[in-house]
Amino acid sequence: VTTIDVAEVEAVNSEFYAAFESTDYDLMGALWVDGALARSAACVHPGWAMLHGRQAIMRSWAVIFANTTYIQFVLTDVTTEVSGSVAVVTCVENILTSMSGESGEDPSGPGALGGGRVAATNVFRRTDTGWRMWLHHGSPVLETSDDDEPPEEHP
Amino acid sequence: VTTIDVAEVEAVNSEFYAAFESTDYDLMGALWVDGALARSAACVHPGWAMLHGRQAIMRSWAVIFANTTYIQFVLTDVTTEVSGSVAVVTCVENILTSMSGESGEDPSGPGALGGGRVAATNVFRRTDTGWRMWLHHGSPVLETSDDDEPPEEHP
Repeated sequence: VTTIDVAEVEAVNSEFYAAFESTDYDLMGALWVDGALARSAACVHPGWAMLHGRQAIMRSWAVIFANTTYIQFVLTDVTTEVSGSVAVVTCVENILTSMSGESGEDPSGPGALGGGRVAATNVFRRTDTGWRMWLHHGSPVLETSDDDEPPEEHP
Repeated sequence: VTTIDVAEVEAVNSEFYAAFESTDYDLMGALWVDGALARSAACVHPGWAMLHGRQAIMRSWAVIFANTTYIQFVLTDVTTEVSGSVAVVTCVENILTSMSGESGEDPSGPGALGGGRVAATNVFRRTDTGWRMWLHHGSPVLETSDDDEPPEEHP
């Protein structure tokens, strides 16, 4: 494990969220494993069942992007672990999103905004063409506390 | 990657759910990474923020076990991928659980039952003492459909 690996993985992780923010289907597709690994790719969007295989996953991004007018991610608590050809990134996705179905009304910014917090596990595989996303698992954080642990954990 | 690796990983994955069903804190502790890997362990219980480190994770199991009178898991859609010293298991946790806070009222079985579906990603590390859980990420499946994809995906 080198610091170069960690930097490369974190760069691809950042690209993943940039692709989501720009709803760029082609960039998103380029970030995911393909070829022999395509079948074993897996993805859980918050509240969804797990999708298996590159084809189902890319269909889900098409649906999500078609229904996204504005979304912005601020990542916190990013951790990166590399073991051989596998890297695991965990982070908190702090999400700001447009609540209305209309876009472009106000060029200075989105209208009604919503937000939320998602706990994310992103697993990458080292391939001939660089690190590629192999698994994405995002889940809604329903706690209201800012702490990482439930209140009873803090005496 | 050998079939022996896959069988060993799936055995530890089954032990994880057996430890949960029997609320066996010591068995659960033995299944998780320790030593040099303890700090990088991570765990997301459904709806929770991510916990980092063996200590915080084991505290969470103590709290969960103290509040669990009856829980049973039926796993479906189990997939196992091994790459070097890392293994990724995904599965659906079909959960049957006691809704009341009281136990032992009826020795023939639990009283009021609830249930739900959780999408799970379990990442294991190969260690000197066998495969150990490194990351557990469970998230509530809010869809009512039995399909793995949203309705609009099925023309």
